[in-house]
Amino acid sequence: MTTEQNRLNPEKLTPTDRSQIKRLPQRGEYDRQVIYQILDEGLICHVGFEANGQPFVIPTAYGRIGDRLYIHGSPASRMLRTLKKGIEVCVTVTLLDGLVLARSAFHHSMNYRSVVVFGTATWVESEAEKGEALKAFTEHIIPGRWDEVRQPTPQEVAGTLVLSLPLTEASAKIRSGPPIDDEADYALPVWAGELPLKFMALSPIPDPRLTLDVPIPGHVENYGRSM
Amino acid sequence: MTTEQNRLNPEKLTPTDRSQIKRLPQRGEYDRQVIYQILDEGLICHVGFEANGQPFVIPTAYGRIGDRLYIHGSPASRMLRTLKKGIEVCVTVTLLDGLVLARSAFHHSMNYRSVVVFGTATWVESEAEKGEALKAFTEHIIPGRWDEVRQPTPQEVAGTLVLSLPLTEASAKIRSGPPIDDEADYALPVWAGELPLKFMALSPIPDPRLTLDVPIPGHVENYGRSM
Repeated sequence: MTTEQNRLNPEKLTPTDRSQIKRLPQRGEYDRQVIYQILDEGLICHVGFEANGQPFVIPTAYGRIGDRLYIHGSPASRMLRTLKKGIEVCVTVTLLDGLVLARSAFHHSMNYRSVVVFGTATWVESEAEKGEALKAFTEHIIPGRWDEVRQPTPQEVAGTLVLSLPLTEASAKIRSGPPIDDEADYALPVWAGELPLKFMALSPIPDPRLTLDVPIPGHVENYGRSM
Repeated sequence: MTTEQNRLNPEKLTPTDRSQIKRLPQRGEYDRQVIYQILDEGLICHVGFEANGQPFVIPTAYGRIGDRLYIHGSPASRMLRTLKKGIEVCVTVTLLDGLVLARSAFHHSMNYRSVVVFGTATWVESEAEKGEALKAFTEHIIPGRWDEVRQPTPQEVAGTLVLSLPLTEASAKIRSGPPIDDEADYALPVWAGELPLKFMALSPIPDPRLTLDVPIPGHVENYGRSM
């Protein structure tokens, strides 16, 4: 089984029938490092699952610890209750890097990096793993925050449903670089190139109820500087 | 049928069982104007469907014309070939507006606007509608571009598969504003607030093969100024 091979191979995932990039295979990547970097840079994943014959795609936050992806929410969440049963799930993270502006309408494209993960989720019941996952969620969206905020109470931990998904069956798809035009079109007097897009933090907005004289911490002030 | 009502009601969609926001219903929005604004601002949608018992979530570009959402690609695309059969699909667009930094780890959140559309896609065979859709794809990613580039040839039109999805069963979910902390936590000396995030265009990168002296057009130079 290829997923079994993937558990044993730390560097590169072996594509399975569902994780293999079939359209434009030259854009496919199976290196764990490439896949994990995309997962670590993203903030939102889109979780796909079926319930009552209907596909759902729900955006949610996530975290990664080693070879596992974690999602969480209220125990009342329909998505989490459905996934907890162990049904097949597909989790996709997409980073849009820019617009690809060709000389012809037909060759317009986008530069992007995406990861698609297949598998079944496991309910995280261990207190220790759950604690690590909760820390990972906070540190994923804003590194350095966990140690500066109030830690979860036992009631809050109990009131959070955490699921984990093994990163054994996954692939990345990447497009980068300039447009690829038809040879004849390069002679056209049309501007062509890339318009890079970047997700950037604006100035922090203090909570109106922040009455104490608390300075903006470095992890907020410098957010994304290394992104 | 509520979807039938939705065809007749131009202002507000009636939630159906699958489009109704169940968790945190106060975040649900069914106004067409709100839904369409989110669709028009996004660049990538995540398309969810099932094939062989496996859910897939695939990122792709899209366009909107009136009350229909359009996606397109190669006739060889597994996603498009599968959806062309008229199976149930879920299309989700998510705009991340910022990080919500609370005083407790538990109340961290994100500000976002998302739209989820349910339905079945229709293969666009009419040449006229297909032409309008191709224009909508280009104008959606960068308004003003269509008129300045080489238009599609009949071969390119024939080589593009276009599907349309009616916007009759959809909902938006929105979170905005500061964190909501537990009352006791407001006394903690922890900085709290919002860190707004914005998708911004950087300087255009001319195609290395751009040998002619073509100035950067206004629709590229001023991209996103009104976003």
